[in-house]
Amino acid sequence: MMIGKRGAATTAISAARPDRVTVRGRDLADLMGKTSFTEFFFLLVTGRLPSEDQRFFLDLSLIAIAEHGLTPSVQAARMTFAADPAALQGAVAAGVLGCGTVILGAADLCRKLLDEVLGRLDSGVSLHEAARAVAHDHREARKPIPGYGHPLHKPLDPRAQRMIALARERGTAGRSVEAAARLTDAVAEAWGKPLPMNVSMAIAATLRDLDVPAAVIRGIPILARTAGLIAHLGEEAEVPIGFLLAAKGEEAILHTSDESDAVR
Amino acid sequence: MMIGKRGAATTAISAARPDRVTVRGRDLADLMGKTSFTEFFFLLVTGRLPSEDQRFFLDLSLIAIAEHGLTPSVQAARMTFAADPAALQGAVAAGVLGCGTVILGAADLCRKLLDEVLGRLDSGVSLHEAARAVAHDHREARKPIPGYGHPLHKPLDPRAQRMIALARERGTAGRSVEAAARLTDAVAEAWGKPLPMNVSMAIAATLRDLDVPAAVIRGIPILARTAGLIAHLGEEAEVPIGFLLAAKGEEAILHTSDESDAVR
Amino acid sequence: MMIGKRGAATTAISAARPDRVTVRGRDLADLMGKTSFTEFFFLLVTGRLPSEDQRFFLDLSLIAIAEHGLTPSVQAARMTFAADPAALQGAVAAGVLGCGTVILGAADLCRKLLDEVLGRLDSGVSLHEAARAVAHDHREARKPIPGYGHPLHKPLDPRAQRMIALARERGTAGRSVEAAARLTDAVAEAWGKPLPMNVSMAIAATLRDLDVPAAVIRGIPILARTAGLIAHLGEEAEVPIGFLLAAKGEEAILHTSDESDAVR
Amino acid sequence: MMIGKRGAATTAISAARPDRVTVRGRDLADLMGKTSFTEFFFLLVTGRLPSEDQRFFLDLSLIAIAEHGLTPSVQAARMTFAADPAALQGAVAAGVLGCGTVILGAADLCRKLLDEVLGRLDSGVSLHEAARAVAHDHREARKPIPGYGHPLHKPLDPRAQRMIALARERGTAGRSVEAAARLTDAVAEAWGKPLPMNVSMAIAATLRDLDVPAAVIRGIPILARTAGLIAHLGEEAEVPIGFLLAAKGEEAILHTSDESDAVR
Repeated sequence: MMIGKRGAATTAISAARPDRVTVRGRDLADLMGKTSFTEFFFLLVTGRLPSEDQRFFLDLSLIAIAEHGLTPSVQAARMTFAADPAALQGAVAAGVLGCGTVILGAADLCRKLLDEVLGRLDSGVSLHEAARAVAHDHREARKPIPGYGHPLHKPLDPRAQRMIALARERGTAGRSVEAAARLTDAVAEAWGKPLPMNVSMAIAATLRDLDVPAAVIRGIPILARTAGLIAHLGEEAEVPIGFLLAAKGEEAILHTSDESDAVR
Repeated sequence: MMIGKRGAATTAISAARPDRVTVRGRDLADLMGKTSFTEFFFLLVTGRLPSEDQRFFLDLSLIAIAEHGLTPSVQAARMTFAADPAALQGAVAAGVLGCGTVILGAADLCRKLLDEVLGRLDSGVSLHEAARAVAHDHREARKPIPGYGHPLHKPLDPRAQRMIALARERGTAGRSVEAAARLTDAVAEAWGKPLPMNVSMAIAATLRDLDVPAAVIRGIPILARTAGLIAHLGEEAEVPIGFLLAAKGEEAILHTSDESDAVR
Repeated sequence: MMIGKRGAATTAISAARPDRVTVRGRDLADLMGKTSFTEFFFLLVTGRLPSEDQRFFLDLSLIAIAEHGLTPSVQAARMTFAADPAALQGAVAAGVLGCGTVILGAADLCRKLLDEVLGRLDSGVSLHEAARAVAHDHREARKPIPGYGHPLHKPLDPRAQRMIALARERGTAGRSVEAAARLTDAVAEAWGKPLPMNVSMAIAATLRDLDVPAAVIRGIPILARTAGLIAHLGEEAEVPIGFLLAAKGEEAILHTSDESDAVR
Repeated sequence: MMIGKRGAATTAISAARPDRVTVRGRDLADLMGKTSFTEFFFLLVTGRLPSEDQRFFLDLSLIAIAEHGLTPSVQAARMTFAADPAALQGAVAAGVLGCGTVILGAADLCRKLLDEVLGRLDSGVSLHEAARAVAHDHREARKPIPGYGHPLHKPLDPRAQRMIALARERGTAGRSVEAAARLTDAVAEAWGKPLPMNVSMAIAATLRDLDVPAAVIRGIPILARTAGLIAHLGEEAEVPIGFLLAAKGEEAILHTSDESDAVR
């Protein structure tokens, strides 16, 4: 049974043959020793090797969000590992499943927000006006605005600060970084309090200025966090805390099921 | 409820504070712009930055196995994505779940096999004898031997060839690479036919000679394949083949459920 | 770090104590032997036991969609199992991940569609008009309409037919089943061709008429398919076809990576 | 590329045709309305409908372990849901991944343990001796013994008690239940303290006496817990506690990464 319409039946990413593996038209054996994993990731997704600036900010982005302590997804992974230490892949998968929109999907939403602001700019209004309008619209509609605010990093997100500073230092900051900065002010005005630009917006803005495709931006949080998850699971194998995390969580919750007279 | 014994309640990987994130005792903002993602991965797992050779062969290993065409795990991920394109993390997780021992867990098993061969060497026998004994024991017990043979790459695995050649070229090849080479001959003798050293053994041997810890080696297949999965899901979003893969698989299988008279 | 606002810290589903487990205020030991798994599922989700009609149609719904041959999610699960037969839970999880909106999330969308039609009815128009308007709006907006059409079951979905027939036979069919039937005609008119009411709509309509809560309806596809997945993985352990499915899928796709001159 | 040897390319579980779906050779439309979900699950896995006693104890087993409060796997699922409420299947999958051997894989291990005890019995020793020998061997080898002991339920597991009582009441208890009882004494002797027979052993023993196949026993924990997970995620949608659980877990762990002088 074929579900949906049938389109082209092709894949351009790689081909494995008995005597060679080609990746995006290049011989893998040739690439080995010449490209870093980060460059290779860019090649896999886009079909071409990154420029030096693209490589620099892709590495930067991956590092910036690979690790953030005992996040919910790390805890889910450590609890899962504790239940079956032989299945490392299962524990990593449980952690990857926690990279959903609320937590780690924001870079892609930020990219779209910048598209919206810069789209308005192209239609003739000033960047200041475009940013204010977009911030205002989100606030009016009581929608959260991606890329601003953080539960822990206040008043500033040090990772975003560093990233934007490097983009300016290296001269790669362009319209996207500028728009993200203007949005910071516009958001503060619309919300009536400062919300720091967070790392997701910094990633989206710096990479957008370098024409890094959306498919790469979307993949960054998952690839980055996978590195962090592997580190936590390596530690969990030595210093298990998965079940302790669960015990402490459970203690904090009132179980009301047995409060009725019937069972007491 | 606490399951199991309670041990130390600590984590040393990172700590997120309002104004800074530390990773393995270092300020993340300081690391940003100075270390590649590969170096950062090594730091996350081990607590220290890699040497230049460790970095080189870790990049090499990640590249070597990131991508291998429409593997079962890639197909599982693409089918899953087709069923919910909004949940990229779910499709990646489905692919990660396919990185089990049969397919991608082999690097760690190879490392243990080398431990066994070199353990015998330390007990006094020659490397030649140690390799023969280990290969013979596996064959006798009718156990598969990790690191040798490949369903596609015959008579040689080009990725393993390249990796071993680079280890020799750079002068990092030591006892592990030597043991892996001897095992190639010993396996051919025990099995009565050549089985090529595959990429999992090449990774295990070159990294073991560089004292790369086991926790890093275990994590390589999963981190590497995550990059490949993200590329395939980016392509799936543009050129969907997930449901076609399923339709073709289904066509190849005889469904015997409705062959009884009762339902016809 | 607390993400988001903190609300009530309670759970009402169950409480495990050393000498008893209570579920929704009832002693589990008392329930054991008296309730079926289907009744217990209803109790878990809603806090009360189902009526006989609710139980009947919940069993019916679970049976209707538990199994549908080598679906993409079953294939993903079987490929995953083949890669690590020791991790049954990983293979089931890979299959569950394929129960996304496109394939199995439709029952909940159907329920909302019925809400929309019946909401219009309550505002004064006839059921006929309400159904036509909703179908027309979807068609105009070029949105797919949940609950109608099926890639295989044409011109009728035998599971939906049976379910609606039983709802009429037992006298439980009410406004929702009526609305679903009217929508069938309205959809045929708007699309210019008949699209059969499928099993997702039949489930949504029959259960909605019995006041089965949305949380139960949402859970049905996943619980049902888990039973099917366990059966397929039991078969995979005896008659492995996972890797064959992948090989056949792969054969059907043109790999264009190595078609450039550079690598040949 | 075909991985592994190619065997039979068949599936006997179901076949979906345009006008009918057959399950294990039966017309699904005929089964609808006549079999419960529990009976259907048995049919799916084994190819035949269960006897009344098999059905009774399968329902009993599923109910007994569907729910146990805020277990690690429930917490992992709730945290995952909090990160992407639109992807219910992802949160269920994260919970299913926690059904590993340590927590929920025990029923199958218990079945094998009973095979071992009863295998010894068949070789001529008394049940008393067989149980003592098996318990003694585990203790000597410092291996945990599946089916005995529980982190919470002491001195007795009320679910196991109830299940064994019902097996005796209904007259289905046979050699397996007897062996499990003898093992309880033998384990107490070998460990020097009482370890209660837990619900996993009670499931394995009662179902083994009824000739329920191993594939069904293996699937019970996953199917049962999926029902509990769906209930918890329904509650999470109304009363979110996922991020609170994570915050409380995190608070209990000392983060040592930023204790060095370098970063303070």
